Amino acid sequence: MTILEEKILKEGKVLDGGILKVDGFLNHRVDVAFSALLGKEIYNHFKDCGINKILTVEASGIGLACLTAQFFNCPVLIAKKSKSLNISSDVYSAKVYSFTHKTENTVLVSKEYLDANDKVLIVDDFLANGNACVGLVELVKQAGGEVKGVSCAIEKTHQGGHQRLVDMGIDVYSLARIKDMVDGKVYFMED
Amino acid sequence: MTILEEKILKEGKVLDGGILKVDGFLNHRVDVAFSALLGKEIYNHFKDCGINKILTVEASGIGLACLTAQFFNCPVLIAKKSKSLNISSDVYSAKVYSFTHKTENTVLVSKEYLDANDKVLIVDDFLANGNACVGLVELVKQAGGEVKGVSCAIEKTHQGGHQRLVDMGIDVYSLARIKDMVDGKVYFMED
Repeated sequence: MTILEEKILKEGKVLDGGILKVDGFLNHRVDVAFSALLGKEIYNHFKDCGINKILTVEASGIGLACLTAQFFNCPVLIAKKSKSLNISSDVYSAKVYSFTHKTENTVLVSKEYLDANDKVLIVDDFLANGNACVGLVELVKQAGGEVKGVSCAIEKTHQGGHQRLVDMGIDVYSLARIKDMVDGKVYFMED
Repeated sequence: MTILEEKILKEGKVLDGGILKVDGFLNHRVDVAFSALLGKEIYNHFKDCGINKILTVEASGIGLACLTAQFFNCPVLIAKKSKSLNISSDVYSAKVYSFTHKTENTVLVSKEYLDANDKVLIVDDFLANGNACVGLVELVKQAGGEVKGVSCAIEKTHQGGHQRLVDMGIDVYSLARIKDMVDGKVYFMED
C-alpha cells in the first residue's frame, strides 16, 4: 500500500454518488509537506526520462505540479480552462468534456511556452475517465513535443482513464489506484 | 530593487490597457525555482508571526502559496470561486467583485478547515484594488481567526489595494511594488 493509499484510508471519506472526499489534504486544504512527498515519488519514477516541463490544468493540480517540479528543477505550465470559443491563434487548444460538471471546456496554453523540444510530464490530482489528461496530451502533440508520462495523485482505475492512456503508449504512474468504492469503503488495486 | 522587480524589468511586458504580462514566469509558465525564492522572502518577513495557515484563492496564486508554505511548514487553504448563490451552511463565504472580468464571484472555504485558532497569511499573485484580498480577510474574520498579513507577488500600488489593507491594520508585504506603468515602462515605488 502506498503512502497516499494509507492517507486516503485514514482521512478520506466516500460520499454519495461515488465521490471521494480528500479535500482535507489534497485539493482544498493542501497538506504541502505530504504533497511534496508525493512529488518525490513521482520524481523517483520519472527521473531518468529527461523531463524539462510539467504540464497541469487549473486549478486543483497546480499545488502538486509545483511541488513535484522542484525535484525535476523544471517549470510548470498551467493550461487554462476557458468556456469561450474565441480562441486566439497564438494558443494550442483542445476540448475536454467534464462528466462531473456536464460541460465542455477548452483547455489552452500559449504557443510561446510549449514547443517541439519539450519532454513533458502531465501532473494532476485525479485521473478518472482520462478526458482532461487526453486533452493535455493533445496540447503537447500540437506543439510537436513528447509526453513522457502522466502522473496523477489518485486514479479511479475503474473509470477507464488509466487504460485509455496506456493504450496511447503513455507511461501512467498514479500514487493511489482505486479499484472500486462500495458502501463507503475504498478498495485499491492491490487489495 | 527586489529580485522580482528585476525579473519584471527583464521578462515582463506592459500590454495595452495597463496589463502587465508576467505569464512567462509567474502565472502561466511558472518558474518554480524563482517562485520558491519569493516564498523564502515572504517567510523571512513573516517568520515570527506564528502563522499556521496560508490562505489563497484559485487559481493563479496556488503555486506561490504552496511553495511559500514549505518554509512555514503549514498547510495551504485554497478558497474556491463560485458563481453560484447556493452556498451551503458549512462554508464561510464572501462576495468579490472583479473589475477585470466585470463579474461578482463568491469565494468560499469549508468551515471544517478554518477556525478561531488560525493565524493566517494571505498569499496571492497580484494585489490591485484589493477586492480579492478583502474577501479572503472576511473569510478569516467569519471563522474568528486572525489575519497576520497579506503577501502578494506583484502589487499595483497605484490601484489602492495596499493602502486599503493597511487601513484595516494589516501588514502588507509585496515582492514588487508598481507605482505606475507609462508608455510600456514600469515604475516601481523605489524609483
